[in-house]
Amino acid sequence: MKFARLGTPGSEIPAIMDGGKYYSLASVAADLTADFWSSGGPARAAAALAAGELPELEADGLRIGAPITRPSSVYGIGLNYAAHAAESGSAPPAFPLLFHKAPNTVVGPDDAVAIPRGSSKTDWEVELGVVIGARASYLSSPSEAMDYIAGFVTVNDLSERDFQLEVSGGQWSKGKSCAGFCPTGPYLATPDEVDAGNLRLRSWVNGEPRQDSTTGDLIFDVATLIHHLSQYLVLEPGDLICTGTPEGVAMSGRFPYLKAGDVLEIEVEGLGRQRQEFIQA
Amino acid sequence: MKFARLGTPGSEIPAIMDGGKYYSLASVAADLTADFWSSGGPARAAAALAAGELPELEADGLRIGAPITRPSSVYGIGLNYAAHAAESGSAPPAFPLLFHKAPNTVVGPDDAVAIPRGSSKTDWEVELGVVIGARASYLSSPSEAMDYIAGFVTVNDLSERDFQLEVSGGQWSKGKSCAGFCPTGPYLATPDEVDAGNLRLRSWVNGEPRQDSTTGDLIFDVATLIHHLSQYLVLEPGDLICTGTPEGVAMSGRFPYLKAGDVLEIEVEGLGRQRQEFIQA
Repeated sequence: MKFARLGTPGSEIPAIMDGGKYYSLASVAADLTADFWSSGGPARAAAALAAGELPELEADGLRIGAPITRPSSVYGIGLNYAAHAAESGSAPPAFPLLFHKAPNTVVGPDDAVAIPRGSSKTDWEVELGVVIGARASYLSSPSEAMDYIAGFVTVNDLSERDFQLEVSGGQWSKGKSCAGFCPTGPYLATPDEVDAGNLRLRSWVNGEPRQDSTTGDLIFDVATLIHHLSQYLVLEPGDLICTGTPEGVAMSGRFPYLKAGDVLEIEVEGLGRQRQEFIQA
Repeated sequence: MKFARLGTPGSEIPAIMDGGKYYSLASVAADLTADFWSSGGPARAAAALAAGELPELEADGLRIGAPITRPSSVYGIGLNYAAHAAESGSAPPAFPLLFHKAPNTVVGPDDAVAIPRGSSKTDWEVELGVVIGARASYLSSPSEAMDYIAGFVTVNDLSERDFQLEVSGGQWSKGKSCAGFCPTGPYLATPDEVDAGNLRLRSWVNGEPRQDSTTGDLIFDVATLIHHLSQYLVLEPGDLICTGTPEGVAMSGRFPYLKAGDVLEIEVEGLGRQRQEFIQA
């Protein structure tokens, strides 16, 4: 199943996607909240769809929102592709490297994004995003982890490299939490829809290719990440994990950073494409 | 004014403290949420109290919760006292050093705290906490910052030093986000109640003194922090900023780390005292 949220920011209508159409979930759920994922919402939605109880939602002209409401936490994993670690001047990490993005950075996949004031190094990062479906603490093994996943999303872990590295004292969050820095969607696909361990990830700036890799190259795979994080903190339903980006970002020195007027597109195979126009804050 | 929340976790009753008594705010606000702080809740509460409209709340036997609901973000500031930077083996930072604590770490001031599994270096950090009262982005100067504060709280920025430094790849969040690692309260005091720039901070383990400093020693004061953060991210009402801890933590090597059975007390002058018993996770 695929879930989406359509409409103006703060007033999105939850929907299920089926056969190229959207069906409103308004009769099933007020929104795609933590509660929806953890209390059987997807099964109720599927049953309502199968029973023909969901009205089609006319999507023409409607903005596409993030397919999740604001998470309790947005976790980022750093340097989780060997070639990206190398282009960043770092060795591959021995442990999953955890940072946070402020949860209020989550926006729709096609919303315009502001280059922050004072920024000269705004960078893209296409990533496989994982949305947690149930509270997870001290999982006993990675094999348990798949039971705690609501689904997968395309996510853009936008980053300002000077804020992340130069005015940070070494802690990355200042460059990861600028307004609008976590475009998410266009939809959430449940785990049965994709093979998360083998998805192509690509990005383009003004139509020119940048990143082109596969989640098969992840150093720490999705199950390993969830198991690992659950040893240190409590994952909540609706939490978003950005699993890391592959090589091909501006920080490599091979491409210019983003500037106002640029158009960025990113896509994860099976999870849809995002398109952001950049403006000046 | 002083605000508190009393009762079982998830069902706390919002209250105002006056003359040593609690008065229920249930008729004024469902809870002390982001909306409460940003939409005139404190003024409505004060008016209702002055009009004699608030029933006294019998607090005997009621648990004291955190005086805020789960924030959108919990921000931590690192190494913000020179003597603590020195005991941590670091130079004082040139810029405020930002990290995150997962928002689900916020718990009541006297709740028992679990030593995480695998932890041998659970450490205390008494801090002045700032609760944001209005959305803040790109403030023009530190002098504006005081208009964006709902109030101040005692906060314990509990930290696991191996998780923070040894299995982290240098990013601290893994050691800052364990379950229960952000005891907050016992109450929130509005800015008129305290001189935030001159408050004594102390901590004790099993009754023996540990930290004893003053917020006058902050490298970056509250107004500077809010102004600075607002240049990089959007502060939301209800967000909590932990402003940094002074010297006297276990990481200094002068004291043992916390273990199950220990009792930690921390106090910020004018903001109340916390008491946590440590148990094993």
